Amino acid sequence: MNIELITTGSELLLGFAVNTHLNFLARQVAPLGLRISRHSTVGDDADALRAAVSEALARTEILVITGGLGPTSDDITRAIVADVLHRPLHLDPTVAEAIRERFRKRHREMPEKNLVQAMVPEGARVLPNRNGTAPGLAIAHDGKTIFLLPGPPRELEPMFTESVLPLLPRCAGSECRIYKVAALPESIVEQQVAPLLADIAGLELGYCARPGEVEVRVISGLPAQLAEADARIRRSLGDDMFGTGGVRMEEVVVRLLSDAGKTVATAESCTGGLIAHRLTNVSGSSAVFLNGWVTYSNAAKQRDTGVCDETLKQHGAVSEPVAREMAEGARTRSGADYALSATGIAGPTGGSLDKPVGLVFIGLATATGTQVQRWQLAFDRETFKFFVSQTALDMLRRVVLASTRQGGA
Amino acid sequence: MNIELITTGSELLLGFAVNTHLNFLARQVAPLGLRISRHSTVGDDADALRAAVSEALARTEILVITGGLGPTSDDITRAIVADVLHRPLHLDPTVAEAIRERFRKRHREMPEKNLVQAMVPEGARVLPNRNGTAPGLAIAHDGKTIFLLPGPPRELEPMFTESVLPLLPRCAGSECRIYKVAALPESIVEQQVAPLLADIAGLELGYCARPGEVEVRVISGLPAQLAEADARIRRSLGDDMFGTGGVRMEEVVVRLLSDAGKTVATAESCTGGLIAHRLTNVSGSSAVFLNGWVTYSNAAKQRDTGVCDETLKQHGAVSEPVAREMAEGARTRSGADYALSATGIAGPTGGSLDKPVGLVFIGLATATGTQVQRWQLAFDRETFKFFVSQTALDMLRRVVLASTRQGGA
Repeated sequence: MNIELITTGSELLLGFAVNTHLNFLARQVAPLGLRISRHSTVGDDADALRAAVSEALARTEILVITGGLGPTSDDITRAIVADVLHRPLHLDPTVAEAIRERFRKRHREMPEKNLVQAMVPEGARVLPNRNGTAPGLAIAHDGKTIFLLPGPPRELEPMFTESVLPLLPRCAGSECRIYKVAALPESIVEQQVAPLLADIAGLELGYCARPGEVEVRVISGLPAQLAEADARIRRSLGDDMFGTGGVRMEEVVVRLLSDAGKTVATAESCTGGLIAHRLTNVSGSSAVFLNGWVTYSNAAKQRDTGVCDETLKQHGAVSEPVAREMAEGARTRSGADYALSATGIAGPTGGSLDKPVGLVFIGLATATGTQVQRWQLAFDRETFKFFVSQTALDMLRRVVLASTRQGGA
Repeated sequence: MNIELITTGSELLLGFAVNTHLNFLARQVAPLGLRISRHSTVGDDADALRAAVSEALARTEILVITGGLGPTSDDITRAIVADVLHRPLHLDPTVAEAIRERFRKRHREMPEKNLVQAMVPEGARVLPNRNGTAPGLAIAHDGKTIFLLPGPPRELEPMFTESVLPLLPRCAGSECRIYKVAALPESIVEQQVAPLLADIAGLELGYCARPGEVEVRVISGLPAQLAEADARIRRSLGDDMFGTGGVRMEEVVVRLLSDAGKTVATAESCTGGLIAHRLTNVSGSSAVFLNGWVTYSNAAKQRDTGVCDETLKQHGAVSEPVAREMAEGARTRSGADYALSATGIAGPTGGSLDKPVGLVFIGLATATGTQVQRWQLAFDRETFKFFVSQTALDMLRRVVLASTRQGGA
């Protein structure tokens, strides 16, 4: 059972709005075992919309069309769909009255053109709109179902969960599991995971690489096979897997620290505050994050994290000893259990022959010692910062995990 | 001249990633007078992709396909397109060597299957990828041009601006101008701008609100009318307009500071390092950004920015006097010309009856005095942080602008 989605609106094709409908709808229908098989966006153009609707109806059992139900001249969805399905439009007096009532409540006169929103294709079911004047429509046609939904997310989303979901069929369904892996390239992850699962039937595998993480996706309609795959993946990935589903690294780290009753501080140069920003994006982080220093200048590195003048002169700001002293200084001065540091050359300028753009040292100070990782990266400035912050958080995650397993300390 | 876009990837149809390519590409091609006429998303499914490519080629002159160029088994775009166009794939030794070199640099062995990324359809032009292993491809075919681009935005975006834009035709066409406004609601901006332009023919106007900024969009094919609209918009918005096109607030601030030879420091509580992060996203920021403190705990506020124990006890951490002392302390200790501070309750927890979630004080210390703004916001945690950082940067922008006009100081 397939669902296709057509989103309409010239503003989408002009790049002035990010379309979140696909995201929302895909996640809504997944628990029913349903998937969206194709998504198209067309402008407020009658011919393009007519063609897109006809093509989709030739492929899919369920078609969702969003947008173009408003009262203005570029709102053409209702008329085009009625035309494609050869169903005349009739004024629905209940809908017309509801629209009039909305205007009355706001002490405004209803412009006559709003009545176009009360036009309903013959045989269609009206889906009430709590947050706007345009009702949705559900049309059963030749064994298929077509839903017309309003474009604004605040109107579409409640209408979908309240009125559309109950009308959708349930497929004894496939389930999708996601495993998130840090610090390994996509092809290495596949090399590790795929052979393990080769003898399990009925699995759909996928991989998605992002800076500093890879998602492994397993979809199956067979619960026993999915459980077996789950066990094998977890065993194989071990601590390289930092979480499942949509979890973010910073959420995992804050939860681990919180469970362990531990605290962290940060001393950032090249990441410029991003590690602190990510940690403080997590609600409840104030219990584990004490404070951060963004020591961009050498003076700040010395003043705030106690890096020695001698070390800076001898090794330069981007060096293993400076990363070490930043982390240790941040830990001592903040009184935190752990401190992270990062010093590097984000670029695009500032590199030299022996210290090229992309060189970075990432430090982690703990009660039992300090580790520093050296990386040579090839990213743009913002991806560089994100990758370094991800690696730093992952270092902390592994250390807290290990310490928790040893029973605290 | 039409452009169609096909984005591929099951993760998009499963709702695990918001697709930003349409947004990015539409804005990139607009200055050339080009528009995207249709956008489709298909999964990692050979038949669906084959059908989508064939259909699009029947409609459009330029086809952009993103994603599916990676090394894993679900990356099928290269092979499908080669097949649809009846062009055999050959191994490109230069591309193969570049991929090997990327792995060598990371001291990792290249899995053999990565070589699939070096397969190039006959006659295709290779578009170098600065940020990943998969090169892009440009194929001229039957008077049409097909571009295959990698899925990750950090790979696609620089590749598009550097290698694809120069290959696209320019349509003597309509031009799109964007004006970015800070600190005013969308409806006020429209009220201010729309009547001014009512008597200019042939303009297409649009508005788009984001947290902390509103974009005004003017599209026209008539240069004289566009120039007149431009002059009126600039006159009307004045300093409320912080830039044009795709510029970001932090870029404007760093450029202004840099031109004025001034420096800034930050003392952040509720924004958790985001102001420092945004400033340091701008290349060249090390000349103007000295350092930042993320003083999440009260102890850090006292130790690092010299907030008085008395002030904290009497007014609480989220208060006008604390924001003031944080900004002034940061300015004095860093030696910077300006210092920004923010203290507030990002939520969702931590609010009280007299200090509800969303309350924030934003401070700016200068040589001639300190200003503090009080805001009561109703956003989720991350939007709250962004809005506060945007407002802080905008306060600094206006002060530097005013000081520059007064001839320095």
